[in-house]
Amino acid sequence: VATEEQMRRAFEQYVSRLSAGDGDGVAALFADDAWIEDPLGSERKQGKQAIVEFYRGAIERAHPQVELTGPVRTTNLPEAAAPLRSRSFFGGRHTVIDIIDIFTFDDDGLITSMRAYFGPSNMAAAEEA
Amino acid sequence: VATEEQMRRAFEQYVSRLSAGDGDGVAALFADDAWIEDPLGSERKQGKQAIVEFYRGAIERAHPQVELTGPVRTTNLPEAAAPLRSRSFFGGRHTVIDIIDIFTFDDDGLITSMRAYFGPSNMAAAEEA
Repeated sequence: VATEEQMRRAFEQYVSRLSAGDGDGVAALFADDAWIEDPLGSERKQGKQAIVEFYRGAIERAHPQVELTGPVRTTNLPEAAAPLRSRSFFGGRHTVIDIIDIFTFDDDGLITSMRAYFGPSNMAAAEEA
Repeated sequence: VATEEQMRRAFEQYVSRLSAGDGDGVAALFADDAWIEDPLGSERKQGKQAIVEFYRGAIERAHPQVELTGPVRTTNLPEAAAPLRSRSFFGGRHTVIDIIDIFTFDDDGLITSMRAYFGPSNMAAAEEA
């Protein structure tokens, strides 16, 4: 089972690789049959290829700079949650989004699912990226 | 469907009533057949009576003072997430716990489920409550 340390590391690598524009590196944190739902309620993308394309696209479109804004909450299940802030440039505007991501994990510490919680009320225009 | 405003209000009332020691008031935010899983991976408590008893017991044992530490993340589903910090006095010790709660909602804005994300790594001894 994934350890607390593995789950925390996964979040740290997720934000650092995403901010570095390394979509393939982000996708490498996921299991082959993982799925993502970002934001919650949108169509799920399943499988490594769909996940690679999702992150490459997000990076190309919006150049997100993402940071953890509080501790990763680990649990007794292979499941953890963390608050994040994304600063991006999208549609000609700098935007700040406050997000909470939930990850589930396999026994090797790879992410098996990701669900992103945010809505219109969590998005704000920003003066700078 | 629950609105973003209703979901945000539910979190605000949840922390204020819990901190005021009003267990019945906390339970009143839940639908009759709601369930809670606090922390994640523990046995679920289902139904209003079990929920009333859970919050009365937690308040009596630990006198939690709970605050939101970031914005409530609302979504396009009747589901929202928020980061919280609980300061309590339990087992002779002041304890700080960083938590993320996920609530789901019915059409009236009542909470239908609550899952609390935190583990040992999110609990710290504190000098004062």
